[in-house]
Amino acid sequence: MSLSEDELIARYFAPIAGEAGLALKDDVARLTPPLGRDLVVTADALVAGVHFFADDPAESIAAKALRVNLSDLASKGAEPLGFLLALALPRGVTAPWLEAFARGLGEDARAYGCPLIGGDTVHTPGPLTLSITALGALPSAAMPARTGARAGDAIFVSGTIGDAALGLALRLGRGPALSEAHRSELIGRYMMPQPRMGLAAALAHAHAAMDVSDGLVGDLAKMLKASGVCGVLDLGAAPFSAAARGFFALDPGGIEIAATGGDDYEILAAVPKAEAPAFAAAAAAAGVAVCAIGAVSEGEGELRVVGLDGAPARFARGAYSHF
Amino acid sequence: MSLSEDELIARYFAPIAGEAGLALKDDVARLTPPLGRDLVVTADALVAGVHFFADDPAESIAAKALRVNLSDLASKGAEPLGFLLALALPRGVTAPWLEAFARGLGEDARAYGCPLIGGDTVHTPGPLTLSITALGALPSAAMPARTGARAGDAIFVSGTIGDAALGLALRLGRGPALSEAHRSELIGRYMMPQPRMGLAAALAHAHAAMDVSDGLVGDLAKMLKASGVCGVLDLGAAPFSAAARGFFALDPGGIEIAATGGDDYEILAAVPKAEAPAFAAAAAAAGVAVCAIGAVSEGEGELRVVGLDGAPARFARGAYSHF
Repeated sequence: MSLSEDELIARYFAPIAGEAGLALKDDVARLTPPLGRDLVVTADALVAGVHFFADDPAESIAAKALRVNLSDLASKGAEPLGFLLALALPRGVTAPWLEAFARGLGEDARAYGCPLIGGDTVHTPGPLTLSITALGALPSAAMPARTGARAGDAIFVSGTIGDAALGLALRLGRGPALSEAHRSELIGRYMMPQPRMGLAAALAHAHAAMDVSDGLVGDLAKMLKASGVCGVLDLGAAPFSAAARGFFALDPGGIEIAATGGDDYEILAAVPKAEAPAFAAAAAAAGVAVCAIGAVSEGEGELRVVGLDGAPARFARGAYSHF
Repeated sequence: MSLSEDELIARYFAPIAGEAGLALKDDVARLTPPLGRDLVVTADALVAGVHFFADDPAESIAAKALRVNLSDLASKGAEPLGFLLALALPRGVTAPWLEAFARGLGEDARAYGCPLIGGDTVHTPGPLTLSITALGALPSAAMPARTGARAGDAIFVSGTIGDAALGLALRLGRGPALSEAHRSELIGRYMMPQPRMGLAAALAHAHAAMDVSDGLVGDLAKMLKASGVCGVLDLGAAPFSAAARGFFALDPGGIEIAATGGDDYEILAAVPKAEAPAFAAAAAAAGVAVCAIGAVSEGEGELRVVGLDGAPARFARGAYSHF
């Protein structure tokens, strides 16, 4: 790669930039915020060898970096406006790699209506490091904060839980001999999060919401603590995919991986009981499965977990932390 | 450091967060954009060993990372609203280092009215890497783009040019034996950029503007190319500090370092001749020195540089590129 930064931007990134990005010919993006709506801004950093494998396909590294940020917007019911990418490239990066990276990024940017509007490209003697800042617009005055859960709320989660963490275990050679179909389904969920943008309308009914990135148990415990309430999580009611259940059948330790592992990028929401049917109906109308998995109660920040067998569950670690 | 990410954020970063940061207890920041004003967003990444020395004081690393972003806002005449920090920390980072880093960041955030509103903290096996995204509000409909220079414009630059690049040369042991006062002044300019926020009112008179981060010659060439015009830069008219002139006196090669080196973080502006007095007056009223250093003419993207001796100057490299 003997391109200058400007040439690199012009060749790979300008073609996927949105209008606010000023063709990436300036140092800034400029956007007119949608009238009367608040902005939601989020940033997530990913490091090769920590958050993904350095030899993952470039397209999926790009997509994952964007999607984990979209997932944060989704958890607030925000509509994407655009994103900035700060990219620290190791010396060995090749033109085909960059081309594939930009292609993956551009496809997702189009698919999610979240154009590239700016960023920075530098070299690093260390591992590939990506930091994306995504901007979104809030459709209404209400935003489900992490701190809003109240006693009496039902706890919902979208999609299925644990697939990504089980997929990572399989990739690391730590899982049982699953069928190839289940194996690739779980690994796919690790490589390619599915941000639940469709939940925006449903989340208007929620007191609190966040995305599950560091494990269901740990993230729910965080939400309860931040909200100053207690709660119970019933793993018997939690949504697990057929592939995950296949893993558990061969290795019962899989349930702990699934409940405490990271990278789900599903939405966790505390919903007032009276609003639960409307929440579920709005989610269904958007084609997103949601599942009641527990309840919020009075008290100070404790989470009780009930295992698949109905007995209290204790896990060695509450949450996976990338940190 | 045995803190979890949440503990680290609560201890070091939540105390310096602004209101839009929701006490850093959520995955997102939420802000109400100032009515009727456009948003300007910029991102810059810095890598230890590339953009600063790993053993620089933590306070100055933090301040530099924020200031290079503020400089981009300043070049558009935008008023800072807040910033997000994505921080990739190597394993060896200590509590005192983090404390100093957060202190430096917090002091600058207050000084520039640009609060921390969000971000992400991860570990990296590589060098310390910081990526800051800064948001600003544009006071008027007009924003001086990089692409707006027109034939007949005068070219202005703020402050003095080359101090930082000369300071870096001195730090690398490549400069002459300057007086200690001059030496520390130049090195200080490398370590601690001074973003020219005060130029906002003046920039309402400019056709084009950008900050000088990759060297005066290279950045002016970029602006002319992006604008589809030609121009001349008269180094004899360029503003050099007494310390820089001291360097040139001992080492005439210093002029090339000063003219093509990076990290100035001064503002380069193309101003219509009729507006030049108003531009200069507004800059003076804000206490920022500006200096006319050249002119824009018809043609396609070429920059002619006149040296201190009045003869055409040619430099081996047009611009320093961190990339």
